[in-house]
Amino acid sequence: MKKLRAAIVGYGNIGQYVLEALQAAPDFEVAGVVRRAGAENKPTELAEYDVVKSITELKDVDVAILCTPTRSVEAYAKEILALGINTVDSFDIHTGIVPLRKELGECAKAHNAVAVIAAGWDPGTDSVVRTMLEAIAPKGITYTNFGPGMSMGHTVAVKAIPGVKAALSMTIPTGTSIHRRMVYIEVKDGYNFDEVAKAIKADAYFVNDETHVKEVPSVDALLDMGHGVNLTRKGVSGKTQNQLFEFNMRINNPALTAQVLVCVARASFRQQPGCYTMVEIPVIDLLPGEREEWIAHLV
Amino acid sequence: MKKLRAAIVGYGNIGQYVLEALQAAPDFEVAGVVRRAGAENKPTELAEYDVVKSITELKDVDVAILCTPTRSVEAYAKEILALGINTVDSFDIHTGIVPLRKELGECAKAHNAVAVIAAGWDPGTDSVVRTMLEAIAPKGITYTNFGPGMSMGHTVAVKAIPGVKAALSMTIPTGTSIHRRMVYIEVKDGYNFDEVAKAIKADAYFVNDETHVKEVPSVDALLDMGHGVNLTRKGVSGKTQNQLFEFNMRINNPALTAQVLVCVARASFRQQPGCYTMVEIPVIDLLPGEREEWIAHLV
Repeated sequence: MKKLRAAIVGYGNIGQYVLEALQAAPDFEVAGVVRRAGAENKPTELAEYDVVKSITELKDVDVAILCTPTRSVEAYAKEILALGINTVDSFDIHTGIVPLRKELGECAKAHNAVAVIAAGWDPGTDSVVRTMLEAIAPKGITYTNFGPGMSMGHTVAVKAIPGVKAALSMTIPTGTSIHRRMVYIEVKDGYNFDEVAKAIKADAYFVNDETHVKEVPSVDALLDMGHGVNLTRKGVSGKTQNQLFEFNMRINNPALTAQVLVCVARASFRQQPGCYTMVEIPVIDLLPGEREEWIAHLV
Repeated sequence: MKKLRAAIVGYGNIGQYVLEALQAAPDFEVAGVVRRAGAENKPTELAEYDVVKSITELKDVDVAILCTPTRSVEAYAKEILALGINTVDSFDIHTGIVPLRKELGECAKAHNAVAVIAAGWDPGTDSVVRTMLEAIAPKGITYTNFGPGMSMGHTVAVKAIPGVKAALSMTIPTGTSIHRRMVYIEVKDGYNFDEVAKAIKADAYFVNDETHVKEVPSVDALLDMGHGVNLTRKGVSGKTQNQLFEFNMRINNPALTAQVLVCVARASFRQQPGCYTMVEIPVIDLLPGEREEWIAHLV
């Protein structure tokens, strides 16, 4: 069986876990890593791989797994789809998903490629659960309660704010889908903490949540990438009330995101050209190998 | 918007709840009910509907929702698919799903129709969760723990055994996907309880489980159609151990099965001709209305 050749684009937290997930997958091989620094100061775990500044320097790439900050996803995806290479990402600004799907959908179709977007655990696998529960109990309320845990997206957003030297954004569930953001930062010399904190609270990622910003001597000492979710729905099936559903996870966050990205990279080859969110892809397409064997085993 | 016309085939427990789910759905209308007795002793809630002995007596049926015992599903489905009408069922013998999918797949394609099989909650929505968890934590063990609750499939199987006047099969979880079957029966005059019990224990539904058969004066006094599941997976994402997942439900069993059947009836019109299990259908196809609106709301 010919293996799928995946390029890792961006080599931060997620990129490192994507490397592990690709190494563990039976049907993938690593085509290389794309990062700003190229091969300069190549980490030891990348010794055997091509590490380059542009994806065009890599050979026979079937799919690019975008591990860049969310806000760079659209630009990278368009550039890579234009080469006829599939892209997958874990774009995580919920309100931006529909516009991104439209943009990348046109681009993907024009170049006979597939993009899968917003493929992490939320948005991503949680979205699959939410959609299924909405269908099977059409009246009712779903609550998605996150954490306690480090939000990768929010942490990256904080790091992008001028004056932030190091950051950690913790998501604290207070119930009924309401969350507190606890942001821990180190401030760069020459910046004022209060102004930096104000800029963080005004950012789109934080403006709607109760946000507390704390200055700490070492963000590194606080880092734990465990995370979790408690997703509940109480609703009505047909005319029958009080149908109760609950989905829980306690997980290493970037490891799960990376595994989901590898799953949708695989699934991308089973879709028609266009752009998809995970709810538009049959879950069986996430698995390697033969459909019929999985059906016998899992259905 | 033209509504989808659904026929209910079989009018037992599930059929009655399917009627309610169709009445509650914005995009369906009831084309009629097919049952052995036809219009004879028509229940009051069916007063306004056509109740017939054969689906050919109903007008403009788009989809047939099969609410017959599992073992009659294949025959009914083939007959109805041959008319070019989509079928959906909640066939629940796990080992029979792959062969049924093949049989109905050929039949559906030959008549330009769609069959969705094994669409209840297990097999069905649990299968979707199991498949997704297998993908996102590829190494590990999934346990599906059912109940305590009444198993519809097992109860119907008991009722089919000679000498059984009334029956209830309760599923009791003992952990790690192991279940005890507690079977409560009334015995028909002229039959010997011990022989009936032996026949029940030898049935394919029970032969692999710890099964206790009890004779009771009134099965009706024990009936409660609440059920539940606790589905867990502990596994590895990439190379990261100890990823923990859990899906729980406490539900009215036939009401949920009926709602799932209505969801897949809808989804059947969004698939190419052929036969599908739920894991092969994007979850968004289970919902009425516009895809993009749901993506904005749920993803």
